Amino acid sequence: MYNKDNVFYKILNSELSAKVIYENDCALAFYDINPRKKIHALVITRGLYTNFSDFVSQASPQEVKDFFDTVAKVADILGVSQTGYRILSNIGSDSGQEVEHFHVHILGGEKLSVSL
Amino acid sequence: MYNKDNVFYKILNSELSAKVIYENDCALAFYDINPRKKIHALVITRGLYTNFSDFVSQASPQEVKDFFDTVAKVADILGVSQTGYRILSNIGSDSGQEVEHFHVHILGGEKLSVSL
Repeated sequence: MYNKDNVFYKILNSELSAKVIYENDCALAFYDINPRKKIHALVITRGLYTNFSDFVSQASPQEVKDFFDTVAKVADILGVSQTGYRILSNIGSDSGQEVEHFHVHILGGEKLSVSL
Repeated sequence: MYNKDNVFYKILNSELSAKVIYENDCALAFYDINPRKKIHALVITRGLYTNFSDFVSQASPQEVKDFFDTVAKVADILGVSQTGYRILSNIGSDSGQEVEHFHVHILGGEKLSVSL
């Protein structure tokens, strides 16, 4: 069950600010407020999904395609498509998911550990 | 440019074996041979894509949806959907991508570090 009391919902609704990188009809991309790598961006859906599993089970094929296209496009904008980057999403308790609104991390700008 | 001389292509073509978890028309899931967490699975496309960016730019909306649906289904099969899990994909040099065939890691079965 999606709960609107989360920071990404507030960013989508301009109740909280973010350093926006790119936006379109399906997604909004902005810099993580606590970057863990030289480049650390987040891409969130405009649709209200709690996590990856919720998103892929409910969204249309076009919405899923458009969202992940946007993730790749944001990597282009950030300049990491050629050098390399990692995408990552946390789902649920064991993963440390911090915000209950589906989001994908984009990490890059440096050599990333393979520790996962 | 996709190069067939990689281990995942050989697994898809049964030239190399793998401990298969699930398979369907679009994807094959198996255990990572060097697990970095208690549960560490890989989901690879049947289509020949070098990485995430190549996949989302070339695959149809239905193929993208079906692939990520499969990732979520494999998490269900592995029993980590309720406890939590991480999905992750490495793209290119900086990320440590080891095999030039698109794949998503599923990690879980324990509390995961938030170090990314």
